[in-house]
Amino acid sequence: MIQFYAPDIETTGLLPESDSGHCCRVLRMKEGDEVCVVDGKGSRFRCIILEAHPKHTMLEIVERVPVPNHWGFELTLAVAPTKHADRMEWMLEKAVEIGIDRVVLLKCARSERKVMKTERLEKVMISAMKQSLKGVLPILEEVTDFKTFVSSVPDGVAKYFGYCSEEYPRADFSQNFKPQTSVVIMIGPEGDFSPEEVTLAVDHGFMPVTFGDSRLRTETAALYAVTAAHVINRLSNR
Amino acid sequence: MIQFYAPDIETTGLLPESDSGHCCRVLRMKEGDEVCVVDGKGSRFRCIILEAHPKHTMLEIVERVPVPNHWGFELTLAVAPTKHADRMEWMLEKAVEIGIDRVVLLKCARSERKVMKTERLEKVMISAMKQSLKGVLPILEEVTDFKTFVSSVPDGVAKYFGYCSEEYPRADFSQNFKPQTSVVIMIGPEGDFSPEEVTLAVDHGFMPVTFGDSRLRTETAALYAVTAAHVINRLSNR
Repeated sequence: MIQFYAPDIETTGLLPESDSGHCCRVLRMKEGDEVCVVDGKGSRFRCIILEAHPKHTMLEIVERVPVPNHWGFELTLAVAPTKHADRMEWMLEKAVEIGIDRVVLLKCARSERKVMKTERLEKVMISAMKQSLKGVLPILEEVTDFKTFVSSVPDGVAKYFGYCSEEYPRADFSQNFKPQTSVVIMIGPEGDFSPEEVTLAVDHGFMPVTFGDSRLRTETAALYAVTAAHVINRLSNR
Repeated sequence: MIQFYAPDIETTGLLPESDSGHCCRVLRMKEGDEVCVVDGKGSRFRCIILEAHPKHTMLEIVERVPVPNHWGFELTLAVAPTKHADRMEWMLEKAVEIGIDRVVLLKCARSERKVMKTERLEKVMISAMKQSLKGVLPILEEVTDFKTFVSSVPDGVAKYFGYCSEEYPRADFSQNFKPQTSVVIMIGPEGDFSPEEVTLAVDHGFMPVTFGDSRLRTETAALYAVTAAHVINRLSNR
């Protein structure tokens, strides 16, 4: 199954330019053909092509099916962008495939990259949503200061942050993660969170966790955390 | 901590060319400096530089510490190489960081790539072993025919294979994986295993499994499986 993405399909009935090109030029679909479209807001539409145009393909909606995320909890990944942007892109592609609800780019004291354009990440995320047959595009937030973010997470949310140094007592993530209504996992930059950030996070109710005995890169730790949350969630639904 | 890799350190006392260059040219280390070296066979060595040479750095071993893999079970990932080689490289880097013992490249009926050079993958794996502070380099096996591999896995090994089609009854991997002495997980190509391969795998005691309700790319499924195995292993050691 191929999914197209048209965030405004219900108001415009149009496939955006990139998806129109893919549909009509690459796949050579024609007037009268049936296509599957998601709006990234939790709906999938069965549509018929009214006009096959390489830039502005016009559709008629035949059926609308709700496709909410299937994991049953709200997962926010707050991660410090890596020095190399491609590592972030790859990780986000995988995280969206596996399942997240929100991504926050964190600006930390030791961040090697304090600025990151979200356009390219957004494209990667849209592609991963389509590929993995989801109907909800995760929210991608601009780079946010660590302090601002930490103090913005409300009480009642389960809060974790990965921390590398053995000098600080840490819980095992796999053994302590509990799927709850709302979960936030923070992953620090290549140089880890600073001691001040650790104190601030703990003061705001974040649990310092380790992902095991391997030293993981930032993007690997992020993906490990997302996967572990899903695995444990599935186990708890047994 | 920086780890260098010298598979023959005990017999030659030498850092290979690439690591000599990194040590002496990039890090500008000198005679008398202490370095940490792993042999990829489960030992880490504390060494002193006898002669700092950009191609043939000579070392004296001061101490040898055994560093076996820490997860306590043998994990083999048998995976069909993806069409795009970079996806395989990314996945293997992450899998080595998280922890695997052996990788088998599978040639399947529907493989989009039936040939893959192992030199580059080996380099990626060495780098990931060093980076994640491991002392054992996972075994990387050349491309192996699906039928040959499936019939080569002995009884007593826990055997799983990811399968996408809902037409075949599948168990949930997270809910059914049991950490045992030896585990093999097979992940098929972009077009999935063929019906004949599924039958053959089941006949040889492989359990068909699903990783959840998201359609995952080959490399994402492989990484999900490796991570899930570790998470469940840590949970069972609670």
